[in-house]
Parts: sequence; C-alpha cells; structure tokens
Amino acid sequence: MIPKTCRRIVLARRPPAEPAESDFRIEEVPVPQPGPGQVLVRVIYLSLDPYMRGRMRDAASYAAPVGIGEVMTGGTVGEVVASNHTGFKVGDIVEERLGWQEYALSGGATLRKIDPSLAPISTANGVLGMPGMTAYFGLLEVGQPRPGETVVVSAASGAVGQVVGQLARIAGCRAVGIAGGAKKCAFVKDTLGLDDCLDYKATKDLSAALKAACPNGVDVYFDNVGGAVSDAVFVNLNFFARVSLCGSISQYNAATPEMGPRLLGLFVGRRVNMRGFIVSDFAAKYAPAMRQMGEWVRSGRIKYKEDIVEGLEAAPRAFIGLLRGENFGKLQVRLGPEPAAQ
Amino acid sequence: MIPKTCRRIVLARRPPAEPAESDFRIEEVPVPQPGPGQVLVRVIYLSLDPYMRGRMRDAASYAAPVGIGEVMTGGTVGEVVASNHTGFKVGDIVEERLGWQEYALSGGATLRKIDPSLAPISTANGVLGMPGMTAYFGLLEVGQPRPGETVVVSAASGAVGQVVGQLARIAGCRAVGIAGGAKKCAFVKDTLGLDDCLDYKATKDLSAALKAACPNGVDVYFDNVGGAVSDAVFVNLNFFARVSLCGSISQYNAATPEMGPRLLGLFVGRRVNMRGFIVSDFAAKYAPAMRQMGEWVRSGRIKYKEDIVEGLEAAPRAFIGLLRGENFGKLQVRLGPEPAAQ
Repeated sequence: MIPKTCRRIVLARRPPAEPAESDFRIEEVPVPQPGPGQVLVRVIYLSLDPYMRGRMRDAASYAAPVGIGEVMTGGTVGEVVASNHTGFKVGDIVEERLGWQEYALSGGATLRKIDPSLAPISTANGVLGMPGMTAYFGLLEVGQPRPGETVVVSAASGAVGQVVGQLARIAGCRAVGIAGGAKKCAFVKDTLGLDDCLDYKATKDLSAALKAACPNGVDVYFDNVGGAVSDAVFVNLNFFARVSLCGSISQYNAATPEMGPRLLGLFVGRRVNMRGFIVSDFAAKYAPAMRQMGEWVRSGRIKYKEDIVEGLEAAPRAFIGLLRGENFGKLQVRLGPEPAAQ
Repeated sequence: MIPKTCRRIVLARRPPAEPAESDFRIEEVPVPQPGPGQVLVRVIYLSLDPYMRGRMRDAASYAAPVGIGEVMTGGTVGEVVASNHTGFKVGDIVEERLGWQEYALSGGATLRKIDPSLAPISTANGVLGMPGMTAYFGLLEVGQPRPGETVVVSAASGAVGQVVGQLARIAGCRAVGIAGGAKKCAFVKDTLGLDDCLDYKATKDLSAALKAACPNGVDVYFDNVGGAVSDAVFVNLNFFARVSLCGSISQYNAATPEMGPRLLGLFVGRRVNMRGFIVSDFAAKYAPAMRQMGEWVRSGRIKYKEDIVEGLEAAPRAFIGLLRGENFGKLQVRLGPEPAAQ
C-alpha cells in the first residue's frame, strides 16, 4: 500500500517580492523507511499559512529560514502508515509540522495524536490547531478583552481572524471584523455572528467607517495585516487600548520596508499597549485551551470555514493566492484521501 | 511687597509647524486677589516641557488644548505670598501647574508643599517633580528592566532621559544613552555614569553604532524622541523587548504626519511589548516614589542638570529651542528670585 516514491515541494529560490510558482520545485523522491523509534506518516492535509513567507527569506527571525533545496515548512495532518514507535500505531491520525510533502518521517516527540471522532481531522490544522491557538492566546492573553469593550479584528474571515471574532463575542465584547470583499464580510456577520464587518476594498474612508461601526471606540485590535488597514484602526483606538500583533500579511511580499505614518506619538497619548506574539510562546498552556476550543467547536458555539485545494502540485499557486487574500477561510491542501471511517 | 500688576504669556495663535515667538503674547495684567480658600503664589521657576507643544494644537488628546488668548500651561514652583487657605501660609514653597505667569491663584487642592531644606526648590519641577516621576514609572513600571539587561534611552541628557539612564544603572542594567552633540554625550557618560552614549548627530549609521554599544542587544527602550532615532533602536531590539513610549519630540512640530518604515512585522517576530504612558496614570503611586527619588538625589546616587533661563519674556524663545534640542538639561525659566534663606 505504501508507494515506492512520493512528491515533495522544495524552495527553489528566494523571491525578492511576491513569490512565483517558479520559486518552488516539485520533486519525486523515494518514500523513506522509518528507522528505530520512527513513524512514517502519509500526509492528508497540508496547512498553508502566512508565516511561511517569512521562512522563504534569508533573514534572522524567530525561526530559521528554509534552505534552498529544502522542503517547505508547513503544518500537516496525516495517517501513520508504518511505525517503529511504541506511542503510535498504523492508522493513527496525527498532526505535526512535517512540511510540503506526501510522506514524511517523524521521531514522535512533537507528533500529536488526533481523535477523528471529535471533529473533522483537518481542524487539527485550523480551528483546533495552530491558528485556533493563535486566536485564543492572542486575543484572550495578549488583547485582554473585557465584557462591554469593542474588539476589531483584521483578516476577519481568515484562519485566525474567524476564531478571534467569535472569541470576542464569547468574551462579551462588541466584535467588528475587517475583510476583503462582500462575500467574506457577509460570512463574518451572518455565519460567525460578528456585530459588523467592513469591506476594506470597497470602503473609501475606512477610518470613518470604523468610527461609525465602533461608536464607543476600539479597545482591542487584533492585527493580522498591518499596513494601511491597521492605520485606519489605530486612529480609532481608545485610551488604554491593547493591540495584539499577530501578523502583517500586507507587508510580507514587500521588497523594501513600506513607509507609513509614524504612530508612536499617537500611542503615547492614548496609552496604547501593543504586543507582538508568536503562538508557540504559549505552548505550555495549549492543553486546556485546546479542550475549551474543542468544546466550543463541538457545541457549534465556534464555527469555522476551510478552503481546501486538491493535490500537492496546487500548493504554490494557493500559497501565492493566500498572500493576496484570495483564499476564503482556512487554506489547506488535500494531498490524499482521508482513511475510510472504521 | 505684592505688585499691582504682573506679566503672563498667552497663546496668540496655533503654529502649523515650528512655533515662532509671535505665536505667544506677553500681557501685563493686575495681580489677582485671593478669594475665600485661595492662595496667591509668586512663581519663581516655570518648567518648560515638550508636552506643551501638544497643548498648542486644537486636537483631541489626553488633555484639553490651551485656548487662544489663554495662559500657556506649565508646571511651576513658587512662594505663597497671600493665603486664605488654612493649609498654606505666606512663605510656603509650593508646586503646581500654574502656567506661564508671574503670579497665580490656587485653590490648594493640587498645590504641593515643598521642603526647601531637602533639595533646591527648582528640583520640584525636575528630578523631584513631573519629569522625575515620568522617568521612574516609565522605566521601572512600563519598561520592567531586569538586572543584566540593556536599556537604551533617547534624549538621554534631557529632563526625563537623564533620570532614566541613572535608574537603569541602579536597576542593574547596562545603560546606553542617545543624545545630540559631544557635550551632552560626555555629560551622560562622565557625570551620569551611563555605560555609553551615542551622538545621533555625529553618527552616520546609528543602528550599527547601537549594535556595537549593545553587544547583547536592547531589552528596554525608553523613547523620548520617536522618528529616525527610534527606528535605529527598534532593529536592535531583543526578543521580548519592552518599549516605554514617553514622547516623540522629533514629531511635535510636524505639520503632517511624518512617514517612516512600517514596524509592526518586526514587533511580531521579536514579541515586542510597546506601551505608551502619561505620568499622571501613576499619580496614586507618586508618594513612595518621590521619597525614594529624594533619597537618591540627596545621597548623590542620582545627579541632575538644570538649564535655567532668566525672565518670563525668555520663555517662548527657550521653548522653541527645547523642541530643537538646544537645551542642556532640565529647562526652566526663573521668573523671580528665590526667597532669602531663613
């Protein structure tokens, strides 16, 4: 059942600005044999996330860059197809950052077993995985929302943003999203239940529109995008507002740093508390958060939307689209079929 | 002994960019009579501080603007010359924000009595007043320096900066200042005892110079200036660095917001925690902090430098110079003589 060869995608060159498909290379390689203590995983879902653009740069960051010719990094959900590890058996559904490839070895240390009876297994890459944890800790611990406050989230229909907005509602806040396009905004309001959602592509004066949508000002801003959209939020921040900095996707393809209005003076007078974070900073607290998120997902209190494309070869194109905001929901690539239900 | 008339300086018009002396108007007015419960104060020292530029704008801020024709706001130290208040008697030395005028009435509620035997009375406008408290809480509470860390402070010889650098040393940190000119830098190193001080006017690549002066990176940045100087610090911030935003003097005269490189993405990866503050946010904690600062000043552990100009009429010119960085130490205007020692 295990094929002799499989495919993987490596970084072919470092794009200076927007990546092109030619910056990636698809390779056919032998399926590796698990050594002592190792597990062989057939990847079913590959997660595509904005942070991967940072790994394509040859720059010091919080994580090492992907080397030229190395497999692109990425979270995956898969099925154990061979195991020399006592903790995992053939058929187990598992999650780990195994990269853009159809088969991969794992030593087991950071391999997480998924219970497929609790939720669709793809959610381990999304609402019940890294993006869900990002939303949970970025909003609740960094943003510190209090009941009655107003929370604004950018990229509100994205993998992280769609969870942030709903968590803000659960926390008793007015929740206002920002997204690109009428379809995404309708989803954020009608399906996710946020109080409002502004279409930054169709809104001439986003700052004025935010002022109208947030009559009591903005107490917490969860920022996924940076750039001009965030500038429009900042001028609406209340005294003692908190800004949870999760990402700046609008800037990831910039060849040179984009210029924007200087903000520090505004942050002084408003006593803004702005904090950047990486989800793994909260790794020690994942377990209870994951249990809580699981309950909310199973009870339908937290909804989610996935955008799934088919086949490893589709990954580069889909990733380029992600950086343009073309995805609608948590972007994943299905590399192969889910196991038949037992 | 109390004259019939005195002088005051009012805001004549709102400067669109750098203030000119013609934006202020000096007026001769009757010395007011204290009503029931009121105190008449002869102002001896008028404090000139960067925040006053904000009060000249007709814009919503954390404090109301000075109206056209109204007396400019400002901290003062003076002598009670008439009192209908049981808490104050003639001869008391007091501190309050009484504005740019030679005589002023006070209701007493926020009038602070100064003990002239403990320190020169002008320090109640400086190291033992608002600027000292700004340094104390902005560094210790907002910046949260830990022993062994590296603290960088901009405007390091200024009213606030000179205290921040010394507090950083007391906190067990490597302290590096940034100031304009060789004279200021020598003072910061030789008199205040900071580990290093960089002259931003004479340094071509400030970011590289900071990297050399901070071999372990920057853990806490106390920012008084904003602009390009701060940009050079930001790229040297360590993971989990804190930025205490006190002011952005480089931007105060800007007619339109200055543009600068977007920083949010950098703040995410480094998990920077940046927080703006206003000293009065900590008013409930002034008393013990003031006692501690008083001890350090009296023991010589904290040194200070004042830059005193003579006569109310000198205030506009001195204030314009302050915004250009022409002062050397805490800028004050002496409006009249100190009382003879008893």
